[in-house]
Amino acid sequence: MPRPIALLTDFGCADAYAGVMKGVIHSRLPGAVLFDLTHGIPPQNIRAGALQLRAALPFCPPDTVVLAVVDPGVGSARRPVCLRAGERLLVGPDNGLLWPAASLYGVPQAWVLDRPEHWLPRVGGTFHGRDLFAPTAAALAAGIPPEAVGTPIPDPMELHFPQPERAGEGWTGEILLVDGYGNAVTSFGPEHLGDGPVRLRCGGLDFTGSATHYAAAAPGAPVLVLNSYNLLEIAVNGGSAAARFGLREGQRVTLHPGS
Amino acid sequence: MPRPIALLTDFGCADAYAGVMKGVIHSRLPGAVLFDLTHGIPPQNIRAGALQLRAALPFCPPDTVVLAVVDPGVGSARRPVCLRAGERLLVGPDNGLLWPAASLYGVPQAWVLDRPEHWLPRVGGTFHGRDLFAPTAAALAAGIPPEAVGTPIPDPMELHFPQPERAGEGWTGEILLVDGYGNAVTSFGPEHLGDGPVRLRCGGLDFTGSATHYAAAAPGAPVLVLNSYNLLEIAVNGGSAAARFGLREGQRVTLHPGS
Amino acid sequence: MPRPIALLTDFGCADAYAGVMKGVIHSRLPGAVLFDLTHGIPPQNIRAGALQLRAALPFCPPDTVVLAVVDPGVGSARRPVCLRAGERLLVGPDNGLLWPAASLYGVPQAWVLDRPEHWLPRVGGTFHGRDLFAPTAAALAAGIPPEAVGTPIPDPMELHFPQPERAGEGWTGEILLVDGYGNAVTSFGPEHLGDGPVRLRCGGLDFTGSATHYAAAAPGAPVLVLNSYNLLEIAVNGGSAAARFGLREGQRVTLHPGS
Repeated sequence: MPRPIALLTDFGCADAYAGVMKGVIHSRLPGAVLFDLTHGIPPQNIRAGALQLRAALPFCPPDTVVLAVVDPGVGSARRPVCLRAGERLLVGPDNGLLWPAASLYGVPQAWVLDRPEHWLPRVGGTFHGRDLFAPTAAALAAGIPPEAVGTPIPDPMELHFPQPERAGEGWTGEILLVDGYGNAVTSFGPEHLGDGPVRLRCGGLDFTGSATHYAAAAPGAPVLVLNSYNLLEIAVNGGSAAARFGLREGQRVTLHPGS
Repeated sequence: MPRPIALLTDFGCADAYAGVMKGVIHSRLPGAVLFDLTHGIPPQNIRAGALQLRAALPFCPPDTVVLAVVDPGVGSARRPVCLRAGERLLVGPDNGLLWPAASLYGVPQAWVLDRPEHWLPRVGGTFHGRDLFAPTAAALAAGIPPEAVGTPIPDPMELHFPQPERAGEGWTGEILLVDGYGNAVTSFGPEHLGDGPVRLRCGGLDFTGSATHYAAAAPGAPVLVLNSYNLLEIAVNGGSAAARFGLREGQRVTLHPGS
Repeated sequence: MPRPIALLTDFGCADAYAGVMKGVIHSRLPGAVLFDLTHGIPPQNIRAGALQLRAALPFCPPDTVVLAVVDPGVGSARRPVCLRAGERLLVGPDNGLLWPAASLYGVPQAWVLDRPEHWLPRVGGTFHGRDLFAPTAAALAAGIPPEAVGTPIPDPMELHFPQPERAGEGWTGEILLVDGYGNAVTSFGPEHLGDGPVRLRCGGLDFTGSATHYAAAAPGAPVLVLNSYNLLEIAVNGGSAAARFGLREGQRVTLHPGS
């Protein structure tokens, strides 16, 4: 059985771009095992893609080949790369997208993809997902080692999420992501929370009362939850915190020890 | 070959939540056969999920394992369950979501999922789809019987769609669902229609002229169709009835014998 | 191994319509290999579906069975058909949707689908994707030849995209499609561009400066790119050209030799 291939892109659902990559993979590797992580990364938002990929990868099979494309620099000098993270192989643009997920498993090995014999015969400047990354992922899933599709490089682009900083008794951080439910995921992890209750301030509003699950709050009430990414999240039980409180990605958030 | 697993959730397309469940399933069951029913159930709308699942299940293979998650009560006291409907097995929260589909095949047998050895090692309070339901579905698809993943319960939560009621010569019902085309699906089935033409009243508007297909109406004209769910639907040929007439889920509708 | 089945519809993500077709295929053909091209074709927009299918088909395996449904005339007199294009088989409504893709491989052979023994037992008037096209695609993927599911016809409906016309020194054409990034795909191909720089006029605005990739423009600046469909596209580096300049499908565009 070939390695499974997990796809993550910002291609959206309106067009056949993701489907075309699947066509290429099935063409190169009959019997390919594909699954979508998501194609709904906000267009050209590398950081959001990197965050979702880091959250998803630990739940994928250890021999997964990740094909990830959020690639505003397609066709420019940015390199196409493969990173190895344990047994996992990640293929995509060298713009930081793959780094946070790969580096969960130690310092990743990296290769620049420079062997056109594994690509489609014609490679344009607008869709490397189709012309270069998909056929390379198919080759890797078939068992071809990364050494055969690229040349080692010492310096793949790194991407680091903003880390909370000390601010008096508390911490200052930011909203990393607003998800499809309208939950606002902050940069605060369990290490910032301490033992007691916390108070979180964002956009002039105070949120208190952390819980282990959404329904701990009354219907329609806000709640702070340490979410499935292991990050503190502002949510509304049965509603959208982002819509209700005007929360958005990049917004500053401060965390104070409980009152 | 393992049983196929059909997924239905309100996770949407923006995030990798559905993809993470697929990663868990492929991790637990290499060679898993997965297919998406939809991840576009309106957030936390259990009834809409139940309606779509009931409409879809009869068209899935009889040995399907359904993994359905619309779960506003995740982490609370609501139970995780498996229902058996004929050969089919349905896994998800005990909030009524699974009931209408399962009960198409007689009174379903039910188990509460209480065997953590089939779950992920750590189960949080916010994402049982990933931590509990997905690995359980993988186990069932691999052939493990429901008796091995849970304990029988006599009282799974039931959910019943509102039934039309007699009102003079006619019936009063409601709009159960507005679909992606803007078709408004009512609670009226063939048993409410009688033999002659019908008149349907909704939001101060009258609709007449039932047909077997959309294109029976002139382009842009409204038409009543007994749809693919076997429910009467207000549609517009080539357009959106919901947008044009302001129709929405839960709206009251009355049905009169033809003029 | 069965032939792979590629799906393209306007069913969207909100409902289980696409999922139900997958259920039917897995019911009829255990071990089916399915992949989604897209379900995001704008509702009932046959031309947009035809364009995306033509762009995708050359990247699918040569033995692919395409199941494509954009079908405003479902249930009316429009015929259900199968077209053969090389080894490829395409199943869907006879409304032009399949024609541009199929005719990439010469004049397609065509069959009207008239053998109900390959359909579901009951065929309604609103969802031939489920009742007729999906089981037929499953039969074809299993190796049943088109001769066994239909009767040859000489006149499948053709669909031709509007071709640019000479206008003085230049050409007049139109915007064929706005994609999910907001890129506006015009009807101009490489044969209309000549050797030098070009100037494109649309909605009272002038665009100049063609490039091979988006990032050739400054961030936020417009750029003309010969895209992955091999058509000239108005784009914005890192943004949406459609939103910024009010571009929309069907809009007239003129192309002039470079200034």
